[in-house]
Amino acid sequence: METPELTEKISDCLKEGNVEGIKEMLSSIHSSELAALIQSLDQEERSKVLNSLDAETASEIILELEKEQRQEILGELDHEKIADIVEEMDSDDATDVIGELPKDTAKVVLEKMPPEDVWEVETLLKYPKDTAGGIMQKELVQVIRDSTVRDTIAWIRLIADEVQDFNEIYVTDDSDKLFGIVSLKRLILANPMIKVGEMMEQVVVTVTPHVDQEEVANIFKKYDIVSLPVVDENKRLLGRITADDVIDVITEEASEDIYRLAGAGQYVHPIYTPTLTRVKLRLPWLLLTLFGELFIAFVIAHAFKPTLQRVVILAAFMPAIMATGGNVGLQATTVVIRGLGMQTIILKQTFKVIISEMRLGLSLGIICGTIAALIGALIGIHEPEVIKIALSIFIAMTSATIATAFMGAAEPLVLHKLKFDPAAACGPFVTMFNDIFGSIVYLFIATIIF
Amino acid sequence: METPELTEKISDCLKEGNVEGIKEMLSSIHSSELAALIQSLDQEERSKVLNSLDAETASEIILELEKEQRQEILGELDHEKIADIVEEMDSDDATDVIGELPKDTAKVVLEKMPPEDVWEVETLLKYPKDTAGGIMQKELVQVIRDSTVRDTIAWIRLIADEVQDFNEIYVTDDSDKLFGIVSLKRLILANPMIKVGEMMEQVVVTVTPHVDQEEVANIFKKYDIVSLPVVDENKRLLGRITADDVIDVITEEASEDIYRLAGAGQYVHPIYTPTLTRVKLRLPWLLLTLFGELFIAFVIAHAFKPTLQRVVILAAFMPAIMATGGNVGLQATTVVIRGLGMQTIILKQTFKVIISEMRLGLSLGIICGTIAALIGALIGIHEPEVIKIALSIFIAMTSATIATAFMGAAEPLVLHKLKFDPAAACGPFVTMFNDIFGSIVYLFIATIIF
Repeated sequence: METPELTEKISDCLKEGNVEGIKEMLSSIHSSELAALIQSLDQEERSKVLNSLDAETASEIILELEKEQRQEILGELDHEKIADIVEEMDSDDATDVIGELPKDTAKVVLEKMPPEDVWEVETLLKYPKDTAGGIMQKELVQVIRDSTVRDTIAWIRLIADEVQDFNEIYVTDDSDKLFGIVSLKRLILANPMIKVGEMMEQVVVTVTPHVDQEEVANIFKKYDIVSLPVVDENKRLLGRITADDVIDVITEEASEDIYRLAGAGQYVHPIYTPTLTRVKLRLPWLLLTLFGELFIAFVIAHAFKPTLQRVVILAAFMPAIMATGGNVGLQATTVVIRGLGMQTIILKQTFKVIISEMRLGLSLGIICGTIAALIGALIGIHEPEVIKIALSIFIAMTSATIATAFMGAAEPLVLHKLKFDPAAACGPFVTMFNDIFGSIVYLFIATIIF
Repeated sequence: METPELTEKISDCLKEGNVEGIKEMLSSIHSSELAALIQSLDQEERSKVLNSLDAETASEIILELEKEQRQEILGELDHEKIADIVEEMDSDDATDVIGELPKDTAKVVLEKMPPEDVWEVETLLKYPKDTAGGIMQKELVQVIRDSTVRDTIAWIRLIADEVQDFNEIYVTDDSDKLFGIVSLKRLILANPMIKVGEMMEQVVVTVTPHVDQEEVANIFKKYDIVSLPVVDENKRLLGRITADDVIDVITEEASEDIYRLAGAGQYVHPIYTPTLTRVKLRLPWLLLTLFGELFIAFVIAHAFKPTLQRVVILAAFMPAIMATGGNVGLQATTVVIRGLGMQTIILKQTFKVIISEMRLGLSLGIICGTIAALIGALIGIHEPEVIKIALSIFIAMTSATIATAFMGAAEPLVLHKLKFDPAAACGPFVTMFNDIFGSIVYLFIATIIF
């Protein structure tokens, strides 16, 4: 059934008070489709539907929603129901949801949850959201070295309900210190009487909880792993990070890079977020550029007015020079930022990368400069000093592209070297630098030539 | 040991002809570190090292390298060695590497490989690289419905070497039609005499081989899965896609979006790629913008020259109007493209998203326009018609931001509706539109006002 059709049938059932009918209709649909459905219902209907669903299904739906909608919908449920729903989640997801609740709601919900879940959530809440600790879950299978394969299988049977998905067993000593890993595949093929300590594999890589989530994602990519143990500085096992969480992290980090490059702050949904919040996210970057551009206006008005007054047509080509330089700079910045993020460019290559981008900038500048100068000569064919105009265009465009290629490549590398996030201020900053440099060089050269 | 130190020791061993020494030194290092090491050696040394390593380690190193370097290094090895190395890879990786080789080398290498590997690679080579078929692997564990748990475990024991990492068994009939999935966890806990057909779980989601890899990534995100079966139109099992491949896909697709937004074509490494190749990637976008900007020059020179001649200071504020409008447009485009890519914005929301972005554009335009008009009035304080200048700036900036917010939001949505990739032409296109619109509206308004 399509969503609109289903929505209508559910409305009918709600009117009839037919809760069983709703349950039956929804039982065969995956939670991600249910989430889409819930969003198409009105406020009263969706509370009724969520209350009629079992806590596990409701928890899956809640996790599929956008953050803003999740907060809205949870706000409509009573604390008891929220506690039931959160209990069904893995500890990492439960922590995220509780972390998003208003402080006093979170406190009441935690009071209604079983003590062991509360302990897990409170432990995880201590780590910043964007670190290994913030994305790890406490649910995992851990056995001590002396356990036999048979003991291990018996243990898995006991905790099978609590730990949903896992493909490896962590082997520790009795103080939780991590010694090795046994894959389920090895466990299945092993002699039941062998000790796991004798058949375990070496731990390839671990992280401590304060490692940044982008670094965690890079470890997954580098080692082609699907789960990663998190340990403290004494190698004691604290939790594990799974590939599906990393997929979310990579998507999130890539979006962050994109938004920052475009000076759009961070991701918020265009429909579900108030305009004022979005103005606050985007305005700073606009103002940064705006003040740069107004500085240009100031310089032109005070230093180059006589040149422009004499040859007014020069003004017509300012946009072309600024846009071309800006594009070359943005291309360089983008390639370098993404290369740094994916670790295909390393700091040791700084000099080579900058030289390489400047060489490219020069090539592009000569091509674009020649075209612009020729077309500029055609457009200004009736001007008395057309050759001088074309020459100014060519020199300014070539200088602008080299300079912005240099800035575009060097700025993220320098920010990275200084331990700042290279994507933080680059896009708008490079544009501003370029526009100031491009327009002033252009008018300066023109002033000299004329 | 650090890389430079290790490089030196390896050079020493090579001089002494001490192959065993090299092997020992390298045995404890992960392939991703080995790959970094190989890159620091010169051509002669690295061939010797790769030839001295066993095929499995060499295959892991080869897969860690950048595409350009991989092609270079494989070009230095003989065909026999390449065949040995490729044989060790999973079928999806082997297919990628063979697909990158020159046609005649690929043919010779395939002739030297075992027939069953050749069949797998040739089957996979038929699918485009960026589809489900192009990223799936043929290695998987498949049993028929009537097999008992004990049979299944015996079968796993037989193929354990060939299928490296798996967490689920695919249950089919004898014509390969997929019926269900059994996780290793369930298998471990099951009664050995039960038939897998009786304990299997329903298949949540499958894809056909021609589904785009971006869609595959979205399925992984939506269903929080770590592997996905690929089937033909008759539900016959063809292969599987694993989370680590999807992590690579997401990274790749995010980079593609970023490069396209910035008009940088696609990712190539700045150091390892010839300048000419990079000029070809970047120039088209620069030319697109350049011709737009030269059109502006043409219009200004022919239509607005008298206005500029009368009030030359107007030219000083063109950059500010164009840059602000351009930034607002780029912000809107970026948010919409990324939202479409992550499927948090759906086509049904087109109208709402466009209205929401235009409202935001208006707010940002009023704020920036007011600031620019005030500062403009200060800069032009000695001009006789300073109020008219400020008014032109304000009206032009506000109109430009609404128009580019509209264009920025609408263009990717329309491209998406028409089944084009919304990121394909957006960045440079929005900039060009904005610059043309912004500068012409500005001078048009100024011409009317004065």
